[in-house]
Amino acid sequence: MTHWWERADLRYENGRLQLGQQDLQELAEVTGMPTFAYHMPRVTDNLNRLKAALAARNVPHKVFFALKSNRFLPLVTYLKLQGGCGVDLCSPNELLLARQVGFREEEMTYTNTAVSSHDLDILAKHPNVNINCDAVSMIRRLGERCPGREIGIRINPEVGVGYNQGMEYAGKKTTKFGIYRAQFAAALAMAKKYDMRVTTLHFHAGSGYLQPQVGSFANVLAQSNWFLDQCPDVVNLNIGGGLGLRLVESDEAINLEAWADVVAQHAHARGVTIHLEPGDYLVKDAGVLLLQVNMVERKKETLFVGVNGGFNLHVGNAYYQTPYIIAPLIPRGGELHLTTVSGHINEAIDIWDKDIMLPPLAEEDYLALLNVGGYGSSMSSNHCMRGEFSEYLIL
Amino acid sequence: MTHWWERADLRYENGRLQLGQQDLQELAEVTGMPTFAYHMPRVTDNLNRLKAALAARNVPHKVFFALKSNRFLPLVTYLKLQGGCGVDLCSPNELLLARQVGFREEEMTYTNTAVSSHDLDILAKHPNVNINCDAVSMIRRLGERCPGREIGIRINPEVGVGYNQGMEYAGKKTTKFGIYRAQFAAALAMAKKYDMRVTTLHFHAGSGYLQPQVGSFANVLAQSNWFLDQCPDVVNLNIGGGLGLRLVESDEAINLEAWADVVAQHAHARGVTIHLEPGDYLVKDAGVLLLQVNMVERKKETLFVGVNGGFNLHVGNAYYQTPYIIAPLIPRGGELHLTTVSGHINEAIDIWDKDIMLPPLAEEDYLALLNVGGYGSSMSSNHCMRGEFSEYLIL
Repeated sequence: MTHWWERADLRYENGRLQLGQQDLQELAEVTGMPTFAYHMPRVTDNLNRLKAALAARNVPHKVFFALKSNRFLPLVTYLKLQGGCGVDLCSPNELLLARQVGFREEEMTYTNTAVSSHDLDILAKHPNVNINCDAVSMIRRLGERCPGREIGIRINPEVGVGYNQGMEYAGKKTTKFGIYRAQFAAALAMAKKYDMRVTTLHFHAGSGYLQPQVGSFANVLAQSNWFLDQCPDVVNLNIGGGLGLRLVESDEAINLEAWADVVAQHAHARGVTIHLEPGDYLVKDAGVLLLQVNMVERKKETLFVGVNGGFNLHVGNAYYQTPYIIAPLIPRGGELHLTTVSGHINEAIDIWDKDIMLPPLAEEDYLALLNVGGYGSSMSSNHCMRGEFSEYLIL
Repeated sequence: MTHWWERADLRYENGRLQLGQQDLQELAEVTGMPTFAYHMPRVTDNLNRLKAALAARNVPHKVFFALKSNRFLPLVTYLKLQGGCGVDLCSPNELLLARQVGFREEEMTYTNTAVSSHDLDILAKHPNVNINCDAVSMIRRLGERCPGREIGIRINPEVGVGYNQGMEYAGKKTTKFGIYRAQFAAALAMAKKYDMRVTTLHFHAGSGYLQPQVGSFANVLAQSNWFLDQCPDVVNLNIGGGLGLRLVESDEAINLEAWADVVAQHAHARGVTIHLEPGDYLVKDAGVLLLQVNMVERKKETLFVGVNGGFNLHVGNAYYQTPYIIAPLIPRGGELHLTTVSGHINEAIDIWDKDIMLPPLAEEDYLALLNVGGYGSSMSSNHCMRGEFSEYLIL
């Protein structure tokens, strides 16, 4: 049986789940704790696919990996050494980490909200980082420190796109991000006061969007025209991150060619270089989380499979209602059962997935959670002192 | 002007917010980062109020502080040295931490779900910890390691109580917690097989319940009768935690006397000692989080006040829809404005509170978030590498 999510580098071979050349059961038995494994050739494929779609349409572009999605140092180092992308940062500590790995300032974009004066003191020491200012007050305080610096401005397009409503970052409701039309004149005046040329416009409309949202994404691009018209010095348009992946079989995958057509049309019309800040799109489907079954037991009518890791290691389903795929590393034969897979944290929401069809499972079996390469370890907590995990590159 | 939440140990004096004898502005200026401060006499008051209500009704009882709510070592040490409560634990690391502070096994309850065999190996080395078994398979595996040990069983009362629906831990929907009626005979048989006397029954029906839910809580107690009838050896009934506090002015505070009447009636009828596992009830309103204003700016029509700490330091509102109270440390004069207070994390949900009436604020001002003494630092993450904070006891 082939599952819809199997692919050349993530598939069962002789009844054992393989990630690249790595037998995952073998890895799980070695580590003895919840373990993230990242298949780096998949990350490279994801990056190259994105770049190729834009290159095929002669769209000048630069990709900046959103570091907040995964800052496992070997992974970040791999990306630097491989080349092909910079990094997108949202805190001084992220900036310093990127430097530790060897990224140059020119390879960094910095976009954050409610930026403190202390943060700006650190940014001022990095004059070549491409900063996207999120507020008029940020332009003022950056200008006080670095008059004459080239800057970007994050705009709020007032249109959101995302995998679900909770993952939209702009829209009808006013959000904290970016500068709205109502305040844009003040932003430009402030930049002018400090001789700061606005060479980049930036927006990020949401996370995880798929093919059905590409129309909305085109609308977001269209919204940028009003702002672009007022910024003769702009050479870069940063379209944020947010490209999504199929999480369940019924999701309609994004058609990257159609998406790139939309981007290309806009880029050519406006004569801009496209900046992108993908996080999940590069790492999400490259990462798995290996967990061991602690308990198999019917509670009332529900078959619960309890595992040795909880939602504090990946908050996707519990907090963002984004589903996982759950795959036994060595599936046992026998009928599939309706199964609910739960973590070991004392919270009712600590459920990895509920009422899914799985083969029989027993204590000590291992499961893989798929699509956890982003926003797992980087957002994890030590809730209930259950924060232990390990991370491995698969090369 | 007096706010509804002011009290003897948390009030404005000469226009400056005081926690006990501590001027909070002075503390905030010293620490230079997001800072939790815990007023320990308030924790003691909360504990003593609970114990007094039960003692007044001659209810034999023991209180176990839910360590997962706050494991700041000075706070835990204070509780140990003060006496009056044990600790409730849900992982081996929590157990070892409690030992580090000096708690004896007899002062510990341990209640967890999806417990691993590795966890049980560690529990087996602590024969006098009061373990509440959450599954038949846990009874079996504990029995294999410690035949003859006295145990507790966590039951699922199938009735939930909580501040909101997301905080109910039992109810019509099957949850992962405890043993249901359908499996209770199997649980008792398994205990018998290993000569383990069942001396405690345990339930936890939800978190943050207030006066309107006391009727449901009485129903939960009533549900325990069916289980108690079958357990002649039970001497302790552990009624979990979950006692709530008013979070907004319109909340109806729990009437502790009425609540204690309900508990007393049941305890006397069944001849049991009551075990309680309060976490938030002891520490929530003793703790404040001090944050500094980074940005004051209208975006579209909304006045945003951005601060130097985000929801990764306390996930209450962003993930659990439990509101905070936000209080400027030194309120400026002038008209109140509709204000939205946001953190500095690049997520749309990173909003501390929205559309609340606050006095004018300026960059560098400090705010206190109230009711953050529990589930703040202990659940915090380093999301966006913005995890830095400090913690202080106020004595």
